[in-house]
Amino acid sequence: MRNLKIYGCGSTLASTKIMFGDQTRYRLGDGQTILDLAEVAIKKALEDAGMKMSDIDCIIGGMATPLQAIPCNAALIHERVALGMDIPAMDINTTCTSFVTALDMAAYMTDCGRYSRILIVSGDTASAALNPNQRESYELFSDVATAFIVGKSDTDSGVLFAAQKTWSEGAHDTEIRGGCGLLSAFKFSEENKEDYYFDMKGIKVLKLSAYKLPGFLKESLEKAEMSLDDIDIIVPHQASKALDMIMPRLGIDKSKYINRVKELGNMISASIPYALCDAIHDGQIVRGNTVMLIGTAAGLTSSMVILKY
Amino acid sequence: MRNLKIYGCGSTLASTKIMFGDQTRYRLGDGQTILDLAEVAIKKALEDAGMKMSDIDCIIGGMATPLQAIPCNAALIHERVALGMDIPAMDINTTCTSFVTALDMAAYMTDCGRYSRILIVSGDTASAALNPNQRESYELFSDVATAFIVGKSDTDSGVLFAAQKTWSEGAHDTEIRGGCGLLSAFKFSEENKEDYYFDMKGIKVLKLSAYKLPGFLKESLEKAEMSLDDIDIIVPHQASKALDMIMPRLGIDKSKYINRVKELGNMISASIPYALCDAIHDGQIVRGNTVMLIGTAAGLTSSMVILKY
Repeated sequence: MRNLKIYGCGSTLASTKIMFGDQTRYRLGDGQTILDLAEVAIKKALEDAGMKMSDIDCIIGGMATPLQAIPCNAALIHERVALGMDIPAMDINTTCTSFVTALDMAAYMTDCGRYSRILIVSGDTASAALNPNQRESYELFSDVATAFIVGKSDTDSGVLFAAQKTWSEGAHDTEIRGGCGLLSAFKFSEENKEDYYFDMKGIKVLKLSAYKLPGFLKESLEKAEMSLDDIDIIVPHQASKALDMIMPRLGIDKSKYINRVKELGNMISASIPYALCDAIHDGQIVRGNTVMLIGTAAGLTSSMVILKY
Repeated sequence: MRNLKIYGCGSTLASTKIMFGDQTRYRLGDGQTILDLAEVAIKKALEDAGMKMSDIDCIIGGMATPLQAIPCNAALIHERVALGMDIPAMDINTTCTSFVTALDMAAYMTDCGRYSRILIVSGDTASAALNPNQRESYELFSDVATAFIVGKSDTDSGVLFAAQKTWSEGAHDTEIRGGCGLLSAFKFSEENKEDYYFDMKGIKVLKLSAYKLPGFLKESLEKAEMSLDDIDIIVPHQASKALDMIMPRLGIDKSKYINRVKELGNMISASIPYALCDAIHDGQIVRGNTVMLIGTAAGLTSSMVILKY
């Protein structure tokens, strides 16, 4: 087990609430950015942990999408909340499961004594690239930011097990082709406009996930020498309505996992930490609980962390 | 010390060689991408290590800039070299020093037994966003990819010390404001075109680096309980011609560090690994040597790894 404690967390939803049928989504208001949301989420997380920014010795951007091509997201977050301090800032990215990977890496650093209080910030600007012509994805996402403060534990809390796999046959099933190094903004035209939108081949992602996830879960639990019965609660990536189709395939009962897609949508990298933070604040997760964070991400990647809260 | 061994490395320069006065630079040819270069560099690194892709159990994209906003670079690299395999892929990003941070994180994973053979790929598409009106940066950069294979060591090689600091007062001294979440490609116009170019305030970066680096080096060496005399060779980020101004300020003699700016330019995240790989292949670095990797990156970040090769 790697020593790690969750000290506090906080989240912020974008200010514009919209409905698609019975589904609620949140999108950035005029002039609002994910950095604005992140700043509020970090303030809440610090309050929750009873800490100040000066108690933090590492900032990790665990986000799926870049705010700018340069510098990394964590440096821009640093500017908002740690200007004048010399706290190291880095991004760790596995797209939608970036928070899980960031937590996984953070546990090496807290366990080995590199850093004692790490701020992990997740959240993405979904609304910057949603395609109004692709209804399935256009109506799915929300702009949300979350912040967690984790650090060296004084109890027996920590990461019990972690695993990741990437199957790149799914690399182009969820993507934004344009805007960055491979197809720059300078090449944008009315003809190739679609390349700059978020593009999700929902059925393909679902099929590949349904095909790969059972084996990943089985192998991971075997390696962890655990069974699903040892897990108190599962916080999955809030990928889509299909969550209720995928989870039974994994042998996971509805009572055991959190599904907030209807009220919040897919919050990209903020999905897992948002649901985790709420479950902690609501008392659904209490100290001593064994919690599994699991999700699929563009890549196709699946990441898992089993932690003792 | 964290157990880590460099098993092999390889590099590729973009195919178009151009000269600016006596300075040689390399830029992508027509239709060529950083992924094409990365594929060749990875092949060379595997040959150098005497390994196959199936020997690798983790792929890290240690790059400064996104190829696409989604998925992460490592997933796209995975597609090129590991299609059909389930090797986990993730990005670790501190801009220009991403390789150093990736190596630093890799050493936790090899030391703790998480992964035994990690592929780290660095390199960026500088030419995608260079501003012809900003001569200083336009004439500085090269498109290059490098690959390193690191893993569990059977000798006493490893990471002796690592450190990072970020000073976000420099967050906007080196940046690409447009193309991603904060200012999407959809907002591109002739009026705000400059926002989509790489923008470097050279003098400001140099001043801030010159002000911060001496303290960072001094504090790091003290923490490492080492002096510059314990370091056999220093591989700095190939930031610019100013390298020969900064290094003496740090008390580092010309004979002790590698400067290849004239012949190669600033290769962004590939700068340090390219110079390191060449120095290994040229016999300038031999087993048992103590090597310091150090650089500044957009952020402003400074990262350092001291390793026993």
